[in-house]
Amino acid sequence: MSTGLQEAQAGRTFIGRLPTDTDLVEEIERFCAENGVQAAWVSVVGAVRRAAYAYYNQTMLQYKEMASPRHHEITGFVGNVSIRDGRPFLHAHATFADINGESVAGHLLKGCVVWVAEVEIRELSGVELVRQHDELTGLALW
Amino acid sequence: MSTGLQEAQAGRTFIGRLPTDTDLVEEIERFCAENGVQAAWVSVVGAVRRAAYAYYNQTMLQYKEMASPRHHEITGFVGNVSIRDGRPFLHAHATFADINGESVAGHLLKGCVVWVAEVEIRELSGVELVRQHDELTGLALW
Amino acid sequence: MSTGLQEAQAGRTFIGRLPTDTDLVEEIERFCAENGVQAAWVSVVGAVRRAAYAYYNQTMLQYKEMASPRHHEITGFVGNVSIRDGRPFLHAHATFADINGESVAGHLLKGCVVWVAEVEIRELSGVELVRQHDELTGLALW
Repeated sequence: MSTGLQEAQAGRTFIGRLPTDTDLVEEIERFCAENGVQAAWVSVVGAVRRAAYAYYNQTMLQYKEMASPRHHEITGFVGNVSIRDGRPFLHAHATFADINGESVAGHLLKGCVVWVAEVEIRELSGVELVRQHDELTGLALW
Repeated sequence: MSTGLQEAQAGRTFIGRLPTDTDLVEEIERFCAENGVQAAWVSVVGAVRRAAYAYYNQTMLQYKEMASPRHHEITGFVGNVSIRDGRPFLHAHATFADINGESVAGHLLKGCVVWVAEVEIRELSGVELVRQHDELTGLALW
Repeated sequence: MSTGLQEAQAGRTFIGRLPTDTDLVEEIERFCAENGVQAAWVSVVGAVRRAAYAYYNQTMLQYKEMASPRHHEITGFVGNVSIRDGRPFLHAHATFADINGESVAGHLLKGCVVWVAEVEIRELSGVELVRQHDELTGLALW
């Protein structure tokens, strides 16, 4: 497995809806912390009352943070949970569509306010995914 | 599990391609009905000859329906199946790219005509996901 | 299973990060070839230093290839692995966001240069997914 991928086992699967007006990122991280989920793949079907997202500047090695105060459908979502600073951390990217079908997109930040969020958290066991500082990218990676 | 997420078991996994010119939503729902799939997470890699999608107006509590008669690649897709009005119901959001790489996106409606749709339906068992009217949002939710 | 979907079994699950500056498509295909993965569903959370993507013209039956030399977040990703010409082949579509939160999207081509790519490859066993020429669409399909 030369590329650094490791084999994981299927763990528990959790499904359900997050409460309206909670923080999308915080709520998923809190659920994982409370239920001992240390590694997972995460998917969301839903909408937000406000979108908060970022673009990582690969030259400056820093995030540019953005937000949209409008209501958005989440029309693309890829995410995972692993350990950062000793706690479950959600790393997710999403696309947010507006009333005209146009969208903004980026790295998910805290500050996305849930309207409806149907979430699947598919736990991966048998692996240790711990984020640590990566010199090359400036990011916390496994 | 304070946020309302419940634990599910992995059920069957179905994979394959939907016929060209069928309705993307109807075909997935029909497959689930015929095969007794009552809860599932769904993913699609494909393209459509026509896109139909919506934006839910969180103030008016109603959908604004939109359509694009152009051919589109499906470049983001998140979806699940649960029970609504006694039958399997697909709730999915998607991003549809056009010939210039630009996209429209929203809540998937019936009316998306399949060009190619490679579908995975990953059943979840041991859970009851039944949509019922939610006062706060005006939507049919679990 | 009238629509052509078949039942698969859950196989192995691989998770990890692809090296920076590798080719996103080639690296996933190489991993699958080296590890005997013949069918899988694939997801990626990450960013690229360059995006390469295409739109399939359903009238002309040919791909229009595009590229963006900018850095992008991958904000939507759906993909699978199956066999084409005797080897594991990645079919994936993705959305790529830029520094303004705007995005381009399409069918993933070789030429996407990895900045960070956190990948899950969820193997499907018990199925044979072999791509062959399809007259109607001009594509290699199962």
